Amino acid sequence: MENIPYKIYLTEDELPKAWYNLRSAMKTKPAPLLNPGTHEPMSAADLAPVFCDELIAQELDNDTPYFEIPKEIYDFYKMYRPSPLVRAYCLEKAMDTPAHIYYKFEGNNTSGSHKLNSAIAQAYYAKKQGLKGVTTETGAGQWGTALSMACSYFQLDCKVFMVKVSYEQKPFRREVMRVYGADVTPSPSETTNVGKKILEAHPGTTGSLGCAISEAVEVAVSNPGYRYVLGSVLNQVLLHQSVIGLETEAALKKYDIVPDIIIGCAGGGSNLGGLISPFMRDKIEGKLNARIVAVEPASCPSFTRGVYAYDFCDTGMVCPLAKMYTLGSNFIPAPNHAGGLRYHGMSPVLSQLYDDGLMEAVSVPQTEVFKAAEAFARVEGILPAPESSHAIKVAMDEAAKCRETGEAKNIVFGLTGTGYFDLVAYEKFHNGVMDDYIPTDAELQASFDGLPKF
Amino acid sequence: MENIPYKIYLTEDELPKAWYNLRSAMKTKPAPLLNPGTHEPMSAADLAPVFCDELIAQELDNDTPYFEIPKEIYDFYKMYRPSPLVRAYCLEKAMDTPAHIYYKFEGNNTSGSHKLNSAIAQAYYAKKQGLKGVTTETGAGQWGTALSMACSYFQLDCKVFMVKVSYEQKPFRREVMRVYGADVTPSPSETTNVGKKILEAHPGTTGSLGCAISEAVEVAVSNPGYRYVLGSVLNQVLLHQSVIGLETEAALKKYDIVPDIIIGCAGGGSNLGGLISPFMRDKIEGKLNARIVAVEPASCPSFTRGVYAYDFCDTGMVCPLAKMYTLGSNFIPAPNHAGGLRYHGMSPVLSQLYDDGLMEAVSVPQTEVFKAAEAFARVEGILPAPESSHAIKVAMDEAAKCRETGEAKNIVFGLTGTGYFDLVAYEKFHNGVMDDYIPTDAELQASFDGLPKF
Repeated sequence: MENIPYKIYLTEDELPKAWYNLRSAMKTKPAPLLNPGTHEPMSAADLAPVFCDELIAQELDNDTPYFEIPKEIYDFYKMYRPSPLVRAYCLEKAMDTPAHIYYKFEGNNTSGSHKLNSAIAQAYYAKKQGLKGVTTETGAGQWGTALSMACSYFQLDCKVFMVKVSYEQKPFRREVMRVYGADVTPSPSETTNVGKKILEAHPGTTGSLGCAISEAVEVAVSNPGYRYVLGSVLNQVLLHQSVIGLETEAALKKYDIVPDIIIGCAGGGSNLGGLISPFMRDKIEGKLNARIVAVEPASCPSFTRGVYAYDFCDTGMVCPLAKMYTLGSNFIPAPNHAGGLRYHGMSPVLSQLYDDGLMEAVSVPQTEVFKAAEAFARVEGILPAPESSHAIKVAMDEAAKCRETGEAKNIVFGLTGTGYFDLVAYEKFHNGVMDDYIPTDAELQASFDGLPKF
Repeated sequence: MENIPYKIYLTEDELPKAWYNLRSAMKTKPAPLLNPGTHEPMSAADLAPVFCDELIAQELDNDTPYFEIPKEIYDFYKMYRPSPLVRAYCLEKAMDTPAHIYYKFEGNNTSGSHKLNSAIAQAYYAKKQGLKGVTTETGAGQWGTALSMACSYFQLDCKVFMVKVSYEQKPFRREVMRVYGADVTPSPSETTNVGKKILEAHPGTTGSLGCAISEAVEVAVSNPGYRYVLGSVLNQVLLHQSVIGLETEAALKKYDIVPDIIIGCAGGGSNLGGLISPFMRDKIEGKLNARIVAVEPASCPSFTRGVYAYDFCDTGMVCPLAKMYTLGSNFIPAPNHAGGLRYHGMSPVLSQLYDDGLMEAVSVPQTEVFKAAEAFARVEGILPAPESSHAIKVAMDEAAKCRETGEAKNIVFGLTGTGYFDLVAYEKFHNGVMDDYIPTDAELQASFDGLPKF
């Protein structure tokens, strides 16, 4: 066996000192956010009532390649980073594949996912600006948990609007947020105007991410000292998540490993965008010839069946317009347990890269994903989150192809989190009652018809 | 700030190559297990129908200092070990204490605790003996999960009897075991004679650990190719868990840190016995002057209020007699959420060390434990298991004393696991409905009266 350890750990000194801004390497920059009223690009001043000032600067900067990680964030990172790059020796052996499989594991923190990388950054800038607190929405709960932890650390108030159905079905996620002192409200609620309107129009509704976003934004803009924060899609989030890719790059370089395929799950794109950032730069610059693959659920296939167009980021249509691969902001994904992948749109950065032919995308049905997840758990130990398991599924498919061809490809994928709060989904899988709904062309067309026209 | 990192990681090469047998250093050896019928010491032949042969050899060996870790177990360890020794900089800062606080974190694996260290060893020896499978009981579920993972890795059948009340209240734990292919039966069940008898005598009972042990033992001895395995109390388990202490010792030595106080929670003693093993050896040999502190729940205070006597390990009285600090095998602890600490007895090794004055013990009420747990989570990020939080509570008390005296003591404690499956308990804590029941002297006396007499 080679001299590569099971887990490649960087030392604390090797933790990246700066985030990398992939936009700086892109020949075609991502399209700007547009004001939904004027259709003009959003300026920093337009965004100031909603977002923190320094985060806006990061959001709008397509040119600066590196942003130094402030010491306060760096110190927090050191509590759970560098995260390990794991050589999946046991999976390789179980699959009898000549492929070398590596995964960057982001689940070893209490939020259970990579979301903490951006949550702590956003909380820091809010604190630095002298704010009282931040508001956000959460669906599956990973982002809300991560933000609660970050706000607790900086002693910021944290108001989370949690999609009502998740609030009721995932009481444990809610309870973790309470441990960290967050104020968690089921959405839609009577605490906001938009919530009241929705409850009037749809009594008994169990809520949606779009509605929760609208409530969180309303509370942020109508309370002095508050701003709204978001855990994916935005350029700033991909910037913070570049720490994943930079660590992966450093770990691979230690052993002179050149990736042949890089795979990540993609909902809003925060993990994938972070993981690939240095590799995509090298690919753009002609220094790396790796395939880069986004994996999405067949139930919510923005890349593989969506259109590249300006669309609203939320169903309430209060947020700016973003040019992205989208299923339309009216698209309601079927109940799919990978809650973190149930988003109608996609990061504008990743959308542009995909449109430029620099990335591939594939969609996979849920039952296949859980089969891969269980097979992985049994040999690699880690119980993966349903979101992460989309990447596992495709990594295993690629490793199986290597078994056929005899190629010893280096496959690298992002294992974004753990599935400890997703056991209702695993139970459905075990009991054979998991749904595999795939939207029809007619459904998608109806949703596309609602895209903003201009 | 010193040059000590937030997390001291050993390299894979520094993972201990052998387990350390603390009994070899003890001047007074732990008392032998006795046959409940004859009151003679149990021989290897007596134990053979119940336990695996190599584990029996480890159980009975008070002299061999080191047992080499077989390659198959070592390879598995490399998937999640070495575990980090964390310097709790954030907790120190939040408490404004001059103390240096370190914790050995064993929660970064899917079983969520240190139990996996012994589970994989016991599964390996069962496989090596050519057995079909193993049986066990689980209360809180950590041990059952760990054993399921280990059996899945070695493709052994795994039959878990889970205390019925836990089976019903902790469906997610059960589901994790199903991911790993274990057969989980709520206990008492109709599948065993002892289960049927208990159900007849106590219809509607929600079960107990003692009953689950009796069912698991019955299935092991009455099915060819099966043996029974146990996650704590036994000498062999402490031997396997010495990997915790050996890694801790190696990590401290890297930075020339000499511990002043070593703290661990104690139920059956598996974590504490493993953590302290090399340090207790040095203490016995006069090379280390550290205090060693066991922390137990006030609801189940074997060390602090029990007696040192021969007692049954199970309530069904089918297991051998062990000399240990015990509350009596009839003692039923009040519902305390630290399920892993609800055991009437204590490891014979630790019992002898405590009796020899080499260890201290302290008991703490549950609400205080959860207060410490939440304070810890908010600054150190990790959501701790209720069991582990007993150690946190006392470590924080000691750090607070250092604040008063100005001493920069080195406090080391074992953080055995995460609390992701204990959120019902956290919810009770948040809602102010947590019980703090402490047994009365009369209750304990009644239980002592039932101790075997000879």
